[in-house]
Amino acid sequence: MSFQKHVLSNGLTIVGELSPSAKSVAVGFFVKTGARDETPDESGVSHFLEHMVFKGTPHRTALEVNFDFDRIGASYNAFTSEENTVFYAAILPEYLPQAVDILADILRPSLRGDDFNMEKNVIIEEIGMYDDQPMWCAYDNAKKAFFADHPLGNSILGTKESVTALTREQMQGYYDRRYVAPNITVAVAGNFVWDDAVKLIDKQCGHWPVGTAPRAKVTPVAPRKYQQVMTKEKLKQEQVFLLAPAPAADSPERYAADALAMIIGDDSGSRLYWALVDPGLAESADMSFHDYEGTGSYFTSFSCEPDNTQEILALIKEILREVQSEGVSDEELAVAKSKILSRVVRGSERPMGRMQAVGMGWTYLKTYRSVDEELANFDAVSLKNIRDVLDRYPFDELTVLALGPLAKLE
Amino acid sequence: MSFQKHVLSNGLTIVGELSPSAKSVAVGFFVKTGARDETPDESGVSHFLEHMVFKGTPHRTALEVNFDFDRIGASYNAFTSEENTVFYAAILPEYLPQAVDILADILRPSLRGDDFNMEKNVIIEEIGMYDDQPMWCAYDNAKKAFFADHPLGNSILGTKESVTALTREQMQGYYDRRYVAPNITVAVAGNFVWDDAVKLIDKQCGHWPVGTAPRAKVTPVAPRKYQQVMTKEKLKQEQVFLLAPAPAADSPERYAADALAMIIGDDSGSRLYWALVDPGLAESADMSFHDYEGTGSYFTSFSCEPDNTQEILALIKEILREVQSEGVSDEELAVAKSKILSRVVRGSERPMGRMQAVGMGWTYLKTYRSVDEELANFDAVSLKNIRDVLDRYPFDELTVLALGPLAKLE
Repeated sequence: MSFQKHVLSNGLTIVGELSPSAKSVAVGFFVKTGARDETPDESGVSHFLEHMVFKGTPHRTALEVNFDFDRIGASYNAFTSEENTVFYAAILPEYLPQAVDILADILRPSLRGDDFNMEKNVIIEEIGMYDDQPMWCAYDNAKKAFFADHPLGNSILGTKESVTALTREQMQGYYDRRYVAPNITVAVAGNFVWDDAVKLIDKQCGHWPVGTAPRAKVTPVAPRKYQQVMTKEKLKQEQVFLLAPAPAADSPERYAADALAMIIGDDSGSRLYWALVDPGLAESADMSFHDYEGTGSYFTSFSCEPDNTQEILALIKEILREVQSEGVSDEELAVAKSKILSRVVRGSERPMGRMQAVGMGWTYLKTYRSVDEELANFDAVSLKNIRDVLDRYPFDELTVLALGPLAKLE
Repeated sequence: MSFQKHVLSNGLTIVGELSPSAKSVAVGFFVKTGARDETPDESGVSHFLEHMVFKGTPHRTALEVNFDFDRIGASYNAFTSEENTVFYAAILPEYLPQAVDILADILRPSLRGDDFNMEKNVIIEEIGMYDDQPMWCAYDNAKKAFFADHPLGNSILGTKESVTALTREQMQGYYDRRYVAPNITVAVAGNFVWDDAVKLIDKQCGHWPVGTAPRAKVTPVAPRKYQQVMTKEKLKQEQVFLLAPAPAADSPERYAADALAMIIGDDSGSRLYWALVDPGLAESADMSFHDYEGTGSYFTSFSCEPDNTQEILALIKEILREVQSEGVSDEELAVAKSKILSRVVRGSERPMGRMQAVGMGWTYLKTYRSVDEELANFDAVSLKNIRDVLDRYPFDELTVLALGPLAKLE
C-alpha cells in the first residue's frame, strides 16, 4: 500500500492509499462539521443537512442521485457524528469516476424548500424511532449530562422541537459557513490510479468556495460527578452509562487509553466481562474509549434486570478503583495488544475500512498512518504508559445515567 | 481461490476455499440444528446450548476458553438461527492451529450443572432485553403467526417460561442427538494450507460420535391470510411485518426471488423506498427474501408514526398488486443485478465473508459455489424468471403483524 496527498488550489485536501490487489475501491468526502459546531438554535442541522444532500442538485433530482448510485452498484451511505459529516461509496474499480461525480455533485445540494419540509418529517420520525431504543436514549442523555455545557454534549439528531423550528435559511447559512473547501478532505482507498483520481476530484471540486470554518471550544472536558435517573416503567431492563474524561484524538496517550478500555471492558475476556456478564449478573457490560478533537471520554455501559443495578454499579466502581490503584498486568496488556493487532489487520482487509481510517486520520491529525505504523503505535504501549494515563485521567469522578424501570439510585 | 473438500471417517465434512493473498483466515463449525429442530418442551435449547459451549470442557475452563481465544487475538463468536448453530473465529494465518484446537474442544462441552443454572439467568436477561426491542419483538411474533404450526415458527430464544423449565438432562439429550459428526460441517477460508488444516481437524474431530440427526417437516409453508395487532401503548412508533411464502434455499428460483425482493424493497432506490421512505411517510420500509431448507418467505416490514400505518399498509398492498400483475422493468432488473454483483464482490473481500458463504452453501446444498458462479447465477436471472416466481409465489395472501401504540387495524 502506498500513500499520496494533494491539496487543491481552494484548500480541499485529497488523500489516497493504493492497494493494487484490492477488488474494489472506496471514496469518502469528510466534512469537518457536526453537532458540536451547532448553536442551540441549529440543533440537529448537521444531521438534517446530511439527509438533504441526497435530495438533489441543479444537475440531479433525488431520484437520479439514488438511481445513479444504484446503476453502478454502489454501497453508499453517510453519517453524522459530533464532529464529522461523511459521505462515501464503495464500488468496483471501473466505477470510481461515476462515484466521484455523484458524490461531488450532491455535496453542492439545492436545498429546495419543498424537499426541506418533506425531509423534516423523516427526521422527526427518526427521532421518534430512536426514542423507542433504550440504549440510544441512555447514551444520548449520558453524553449530555457528562459534557454539560461543552458543545460535545449536543445531540446529533436534535429534538423534535429544534428540528421543527429549523428554517431552510438557517440550514443554508450553516451549509455556506461549514461546507467550504478547506474544511473538506476526500479520501480514496483500494484499487485505483492516483493521478486519475486527483484529476477527477479537481475537475469536480476545484471551484468550490474557499472559507474558514473554525471550531469553537476545542478544550478538554473536566470530570463531572453527577447522577441522573430517567424512569421508564414499561421497560424490562435498566440501561446504565458511566462516563469519565480520557485523552483527546491528537494525544499520544490515546493508544494506552484504548488498550486500557479493552482490558477493563472489551466485550470478551475483560474485567467487566468476567465480573458481570459471565456470571449472568448483567446482560451486557463494556467500556470503550471515544476520542474527540481536544478531549476524550471513557464510556462504560451495562444493561441488566433492574434489581441488579445497584450491585453492578458498586462492582464496577470497585473494579475501577482497583485498576486505578494497582494498574493492569503484563499479561492483560499482551492479550489486549494481540486483540488490537488482529482487529487492525482484519479491518484493513477492505478498502472501505482503510478509506475510513485514512480519511479520519487526516481530518483529525493531518497525518497518514499506515497499517504498520498503527500496529507499531499499539505495540509500543507499556505498563508505564497505562500508569501515566490512569494518573492523568483517573476514574474518581463519574457521570452516571440510568434509564429504565428504576425510580432512583442510591 | 480454489476449493477443497474432505469427509472424515465419522462423516464430518471439511470444506475449504484458499486465497493465498489474504491476510487472515476464518474457520467455522456449522452444526445443522436450530429452533426448528426443537420440541415445544425444548424451546430455546439450541440457543442456550450455544452459550453453554463457551462454558468449558474437560480440558478448559470457561475462563481458559476466553483467554485462549484472546491470546491469539481471535475475532470469535457464535450464532443460532432457526436452522443452524455456528461457531467461528477469524485469526491471523499463524494462529489457525490454535483456533481449530479451541473450537473443536468447546464443541464437546462439559455442560456442568452449576454453569447451566448460572447461564440460564443470562439467557433470561437476553430474552428480557429483546422484549424491549420493538423491531425484534414484532419480527419474532410475525414469524410465529406466519409459520403457525410449522416448526420454522419456533422462537430462537424460547420464552422465559420454557427456558426456566429446561433441565440440564434435556440439553444433554438434545446435544447427544444433534451434535453428531455427520451433522457438522467445518468451513475454512482465507490464507491457509489445506492439507495441514485437514490433519488438524481430523486429529481433533475424527473421534466424534457418528449418528443421524434428521430434520422433521422439511415442507413448504402455505400462505396464511391473517392479521394480528399487539398493542404497546408506550411506544412511539408502529412496527409492522407482512409475510408471504417464497422459494426454498435449494430452489433454482431463489436468485429471482432475491432480485425481486431487492427491486421491491431494497433499502435504497426500491419501490417501497420511493413510495414510503423518501416522502417521509415511513421511517423505514423494506422487503427481504429469507430462504430456509424446504421453504422460504418474503419479509416486508416498516416502521412509522402510528397514524400513518393504515395508509402505508394500503400503499404496500397496492405496490405488491402492481408487481404481481405487471411484473418489473428491464431497467429495474439491471440495477438490481448491478447492486448484487457489487455486494457479492465486496462480501468476498474478507475471509470471514467467504467462510460464511462456503459453510452455509455446503450445509444447505452440499455444493460449493465460487464467487464467479454466484455472480453468474444472479446474472442469469431474466424477466421471465421473475414472472415465474411471481406466479408460483404470489403476494395475494399476507400474514400481517403490527406492534406499537395502535389498538387495531381495519
